Amino acid sequence: MSVKLYIGNKNYSSWSMRPWLCLKKAGISFEEVIIPLDVAGFKEKILSISSAGTVPILEIDGVAITESLAISEWAAEQNPQILPSDSVVRAQCRAAASLMHAGFSALRTHCPMNVRGRSSKPVHAAALEDAAKVDAFWCSWLEKHATDQKPFLFGDWSMADAFFAPVVSRFQTFNLPRSERAQFYIETMENDVHYQEWAQAGAKEEWCIESADGYLS
Amino acid sequence: MSVKLYIGNKNYSSWSMRPWLCLKKAGISFEEVIIPLDVAGFKEKILSISSAGTVPILEIDGVAITESLAISEWAAEQNPQILPSDSVVRAQCRAAASLMHAGFSALRTHCPMNVRGRSSKPVHAAALEDAAKVDAFWCSWLEKHATDQKPFLFGDWSMADAFFAPVVSRFQTFNLPRSERAQFYIETMENDVHYQEWAQAGAKEEWCIESADGYLS
Repeated sequence: MSVKLYIGNKNYSSWSMRPWLCLKKAGISFEEVIIPLDVAGFKEKILSISSAGTVPILEIDGVAITESLAISEWAAEQNPQILPSDSVVRAQCRAAASLMHAGFSALRTHCPMNVRGRSSKPVHAAALEDAAKVDAFWCSWLEKHATDQKPFLFGDWSMADAFFAPVVSRFQTFNLPRSERAQFYIETMENDVHYQEWAQAGAKEEWCIESADGYLS
Repeated sequence: MSVKLYIGNKNYSSWSMRPWLCLKKAGISFEEVIIPLDVAGFKEKILSISSAGTVPILEIDGVAITESLAISEWAAEQNPQILPSDSVVRAQCRAAASLMHAGFSALRTHCPMNVRGRSSKPVHAAALEDAAKVDAFWCSWLEKHATDQKPFLFGDWSMADAFFAPVVSRFQTFNLPRSERAQFYIETMENDVHYQEWAQAGAKEEWCIESADGYLS
């Protein structure tokens, strides 16, 4: 089976980071192809792979699968360990991923992921409200499921952590206020080997997206 | 196992319709509880069931699961027949559901679901663009997967049809332009027994949400 993942720049593409982490954590071998966003011809390049016109795209033996959640679920079918083993907890974990997928739009708009960026600019009030909500959700899941040995949102690392990974990055880039428990979770994520692999690669990229960098200062 | 689904009004709650259809199609027995939206105390009522504060909520033996996608995936775990049997097609079906979950925001904003409503008002240009995109996606899936005997988006009825069911309803309420193939799909959906059960119940509801009805004329 040939598995190829098309992604955007690692510094900016939050959507790409999520299924990339799921494929890595599931132990799936895949070829990674970066399509730099916001450069001449990038839209045509994406459209030549999938008519949906968005990254990430997983290509399995030449057949395209779009949407970060669908790609992550495919990864979970190959290796169910990236989802909790208990049926109800698994459903709650999926709810967490889905909540992030469609929610917190002010945070996503005003604090775009920028892995290597650091900002001291005041943050839009609606984004701060979203960040506080994210913090509260994190705490509620961590309180129920996390332990010293299993410090992720639902205990063991899961798809939910993949979906909130770009938010962890935003908390750092925009120095967002956070509770003590959220701070501990952020550190846990930043110490994760695959999170680091992505972040370090993003930091080294030479492409700059001005519209995103404009939010920094 | 006690299974309870909390939903909003059937006339208006597109989010509720999706997992309700998945539970029905999966043949799962469940108790249905309608929480009328936009009436005094409805937010507190929802918050008393889940701190996420949104419907739908699935309650399994007293434990709450939010998010329409997560509830639908839980239904698919009970009965895998609501997802395609081929692994890659299953991933594409999930991509379709996920695309609807987070996309087409202009259509969702300007043409809110209103099962019993009919409008002849001109529709916002951005919503029309979204509708044309939905039409094109439907056609691309139907062309590959639908047959006379299996006329749904991915052949047999699937989670993707559940996620687009409220859009089928919007096409009718707002008389949106559609291709011949999309028209055939809309008729297929409207003839489905569970779609009809939901729509007929919505039509009979006495609650009115003025902000939603305001889009009609």
